[in-house]
Amino acid sequence: MENNRPLILISNDDGYLAKGINSLVGMLRDMADILVVAPESARSGYSRAFSAYSYLTMTKRHEEDGLLVYSCNGTPVDCVKLALNRLCQNRRPDVIIGGINHGDNASVNSHYSGTMGVTMEGCMKYIPSIAFSLCDFDEDADFEPMRDIVRRLTAKVLEEGLPTGICLNVNVPKETPLKGVRVCRMAYGTWGNEVVTTRHPRGFDLYWMLGEYTNDEPEDEDTDNWALSNGYIAITPTTIDLTAHSFIDTVKAWKL
Amino acid sequence: MENNRPLILISNDDGYLAKGINSLVGMLRDMADILVVAPESARSGYSRAFSAYSYLTMTKRHEEDGLLVYSCNGTPVDCVKLALNRLCQNRRPDVIIGGINHGDNASVNSHYSGTMGVTMEGCMKYIPSIAFSLCDFDEDADFEPMRDIVRRLTAKVLEEGLPTGICLNVNVPKETPLKGVRVCRMAYGTWGNEVVTTRHPRGFDLYWMLGEYTNDEPEDEDTDNWALSNGYIAITPTTIDLTAHSFIDTVKAWKL
Repeated sequence: MENNRPLILISNDDGYLAKGINSLVGMLRDMADILVVAPESARSGYSRAFSAYSYLTMTKRHEEDGLLVYSCNGTPVDCVKLALNRLCQNRRPDVIIGGINHGDNASVNSHYSGTMGVTMEGCMKYIPSIAFSLCDFDEDADFEPMRDIVRRLTAKVLEEGLPTGICLNVNVPKETPLKGVRVCRMAYGTWGNEVVTTRHPRGFDLYWMLGEYTNDEPEDEDTDNWALSNGYIAITPTTIDLTAHSFIDTVKAWKL
Repeated sequence: MENNRPLILISNDDGYLAKGINSLVGMLRDMADILVVAPESARSGYSRAFSAYSYLTMTKRHEEDGLLVYSCNGTPVDCVKLALNRLCQNRRPDVIIGGINHGDNASVNSHYSGTMGVTMEGCMKYIPSIAFSLCDFDEDADFEPMRDIVRRLTAKVLEEGLPTGICLNVNVPKETPLKGVRVCRMAYGTWGNEVVTTRHPRGFDLYWMLGEYTNDEPEDEDTDNWALSNGYIAITPTTIDLTAHSFIDTVKAWKL
């Protein structure tokens, strides 16, 4: 690849063949050289998991001017680690992007999301990182309405970077026209009724993870959930510092 | 189980047979009824992953007065979700504990940790939750020096609860005698050289995740890494709110 253009590393959790990641590549092709290292198949709900026990493989799937595509048998985080350690030793990505995810990664979903795994892994490596998600699980979802925000935000981050330890989680509602952008905090929300039980033909229980999401602060207009349910793009600045700083003094006062 | 005692739900990422989780059960048996739902085998590095595609099974492994032990074929987070949705419908746990982990879950490891997955899942369900880890990966590690902090902290949390969205990540150094307790923030640190390559007998590359950890702020005495390398127990109050609140106004000023 050329070395005078920016390099964007892209991964996802829907797999390298998903429409979302390929739409994203199409939107950014003219702005940067692009390296895709993405899972072979769907890895939703993989969070920041990496493969501590099993070996990984990578397969080159496509190569053309300014675009290289690999698949990997591992998790979204494995993809980023493999890319940085085995493909980017001589050319560090300027930006890492997870997405475009088929489905919402707002509120507590950002904990479970493999797309956010990509982004937080990039952030842990001190590389400016963004996650893009569309609130539409359809495998043939229409990502075109996201083109403008994807390009403008990526250009901004390429130009200015992001502070250490901070990445961006961008969710876009399915309904168009989009009403604009809200910069948000993560809503508190809860998954309930998470388990559906079926019977194995041999007569024992099989459990399946599904569930219903409830926004626990529906009146609060500063959350990502509120923005999305009211037609706005939600940008949630996200930190890799998990410390609850506000509670440190209280625990100190426990005098353990 | 009796209903006049507290109920503690315990899981881990080393599997239900690991010495760490069984030591923890032994330390807490007289304080509460205990329900263990833990992975069948090791699940290190599973983070907050849950099984979005595959079925789960649970197997009762042990039952005696005040102690019930199940294994599950899923992730640490699956274990908590299954326990809450299928075993605790009539009796909500008073505390959820992940651990005791064989190995350190400080700094960015708290992102990857399945033990922290247990704890953050509990916290997302608004149940006071704690993770305990010993900085010793040995499968026969000696957990006894942790007995005092495990019992005192669990008693405190049973008595006072924890604020919404905040859990505790407790790491204990291997070296004894322990010098005391430090209430910390999460250090910024980086994993490097993360990939080791070997060859498959058929001649293609296999990649394995290992790596070397670097504390990126070794001089800062308020971090978990500092506490641990200086012989102190590190208690890091941890939040499930991933919002980078300090950066919201900056992104708003971008006028996207």
